[in-house]
Amino acid sequence: MVFFNTKSTIILNRIIRAYTTTSNITVDALVYSNYGKPSEVLKWHSYPLPALTPETVQVKFLASPINPADVNQVQGAYPLKPPFQLLNEKDDIKYAVGGNEGVAQVIATGDKVKGIKVGDQVIMAKAGYGTWRTYATGPASDFQVLPMTDSVSNIQLATLSVNPCTAYRMLKDFVKLNKGDYVIQNGANSAVGQSVIQLAKAWGIKTINVVRNRPDIDALRNELEQLGATHVITDDELGSFETKSLIKEWGQPKLGLNCVGGKSATEMARHLSANGQYVTYGAMARAPLSLPASLLIFKNISFHGFWMSRWTDTHNMEERKIMIDELIDLMKRGHFVEPKWTQVEWKEEPVKAAVDQGIQGYGSGKQVILF
Amino acid sequence: MVFFNTKSTIILNRIIRAYTTTSNITVDALVYSNYGKPSEVLKWHSYPLPALTPETVQVKFLASPINPADVNQVQGAYPLKPPFQLLNEKDDIKYAVGGNEGVAQVIATGDKVKGIKVGDQVIMAKAGYGTWRTYATGPASDFQVLPMTDSVSNIQLATLSVNPCTAYRMLKDFVKLNKGDYVIQNGANSAVGQSVIQLAKAWGIKTINVVRNRPDIDALRNELEQLGATHVITDDELGSFETKSLIKEWGQPKLGLNCVGGKSATEMARHLSANGQYVTYGAMARAPLSLPASLLIFKNISFHGFWMSRWTDTHNMEERKIMIDELIDLMKRGHFVEPKWTQVEWKEEPVKAAVDQGIQGYGSGKQVILF
Repeated sequence: MVFFNTKSTIILNRIIRAYTTTSNITVDALVYSNYGKPSEVLKWHSYPLPALTPETVQVKFLASPINPADVNQVQGAYPLKPPFQLLNEKDDIKYAVGGNEGVAQVIATGDKVKGIKVGDQVIMAKAGYGTWRTYATGPASDFQVLPMTDSVSNIQLATLSVNPCTAYRMLKDFVKLNKGDYVIQNGANSAVGQSVIQLAKAWGIKTINVVRNRPDIDALRNELEQLGATHVITDDELGSFETKSLIKEWGQPKLGLNCVGGKSATEMARHLSANGQYVTYGAMARAPLSLPASLLIFKNISFHGFWMSRWTDTHNMEERKIMIDELIDLMKRGHFVEPKWTQVEWKEEPVKAAVDQGIQGYGSGKQVILF
Repeated sequence: MVFFNTKSTIILNRIIRAYTTTSNITVDALVYSNYGKPSEVLKWHSYPLPALTPETVQVKFLASPINPADVNQVQGAYPLKPPFQLLNEKDDIKYAVGGNEGVAQVIATGDKVKGIKVGDQVIMAKAGYGTWRTYATGPASDFQVLPMTDSVSNIQLATLSVNPCTAYRMLKDFVKLNKGDYVIQNGANSAVGQSVIQLAKAWGIKTINVVRNRPDIDALRNELEQLGATHVITDDELGSFETKSLIKEWGQPKLGLNCVGGKSATEMARHLSANGQYVTYGAMARAPLSLPASLLIFKNISFHGFWMSRWTDTHNMEERKIMIDELIDLMKRGHFVEPKWTQVEWKEEPVKAAVDQGIQGYGSGKQVILF
């Protein structure tokens, strides 16, 4: 192993920086200047990477997913609006760069930057950064450094900050779960649902996983059980007397996680134990959640929402680091597998088509751009 | 002022006890042995007051209201089931005594009883005690002593432990309210609603009060404003653009209190500030609460239920004493007026008719039995 003393590290950094800042790197980015149908408003935009300053760092993006929320954001249908800004001094239109999640590598750091160094892998510090681009220059506070690891893939790192973190927070922040306690969730084969299954398994928490009924239900059941699901039931079974008895026998869940809404989401709430907590983080059925007063008043169930972007914006990097370190540690130890994914080619038309396509089904997995 | 020394107090207590325990007091009670329509299942039952023991006290009831929940309880439609028990040694049927709320006065105390003395005014320590009776003998722990006061009426004391306490807890336990903060509530002219208005006023909290539209709306508006309501609006106005603007101008409420349910309860939730808390304690419209996912996820509103009986059963007498002392102090100082009420004659048929009638309208006020 080679050790550099402080002076030689500074010199090395200057060499790297001199290389990058004078190499006239061109950024390719998928941007938009107004909201609308993704394939119509998104455009390919190439511009010189803004110069390094003493307070900024330069990063090269490695992989960025296309998440459902990214699509809604381009459509203007998402409450988190991206910043529209001049991406370089030659632009005369303010653009937003698409995407909110991704992993990048630091290629240069300004003199005054601390706690982040060339070679570090980073994720975005906040949602709304714009990750569908090849390079970026920004203040060090825009990025959060990941622990060094070889055994975790770029796909896992690029898709870490939304789905696994959502699962982590929902399991931690609403009720104290002890080993052996039950959680019930619908949309259990979604990306968050699979994260919930794996985290709960790693922490000794049992899961009741509700999925839509389908012809190949046994294959799906099998797959989720392989991930660590304790029980898998279909939404058809959710309201039956048998299911009610079964769940009472297993142990009524203290926590319910809902990304579906509508009638089956109400049915799911009825299975919670008294004083249970019920967290909504999605609405795939596009129907409201209907709550009989008795669930609120007499069973004392509380209903909350969870939105990862808000959590990230209202908590500091230290709190986020604890979560990310633990998730990456679980990934290293094989408790958290790479999600199913398909590569999106980093060219204008394929990416635009992928964004238009939006939410893909379970079978083909998450769409990820590799740069 | 006359002071008794300990010895003379003991002698005095013995004289009082000797008088009461040998006076063969007869208890008249309205009881039921199975659930059903109140006038059909309720019956008048007279029996000797059980003898005093070293650990018990004897009380004489002064006033007991007929609350909507009491009616549901007789019908068997209430989650809190009363104890069915042998009321005296000559009975061969187990009865429940109707009623859950009331004020009584201590007429005798056992030798080993501490902290409660003859002449004390008491309320029931827990819900489900059975207050539609003239006398009772029970362990001291069945009763909670009220602070001595002349200026608070028996009606106020008899109706203290459900409605004013519900208002108190809902204003205290779900979000920290500072002076000038807003609360929005529907059913604002209900007994709890009026308690909320008066407590909020006393504590410097502003209220937006939603009531059903009606021909004499101005009279009602006036009446609620006299009690301390900051604003009164009708449910018709709740969803309008003007109301939305007005409420934004006044200040979006941090807390919503719902005893109605249905569509207008959803409309009310939309007026809360981000991170607001919404508490359901009734369902007068008998329709579920329908929640758009965006209110949960993006606006981060949490939805809870509140049930006073559960609070009382899960908190100790000391915690309850703090609340009751504060409420009685507000009553003494004129911040909390006697609710509208009508007297129910303490005879079998009038009481049964009053229970059948159940929830009376706002105009005629709460039905209270005076013994």
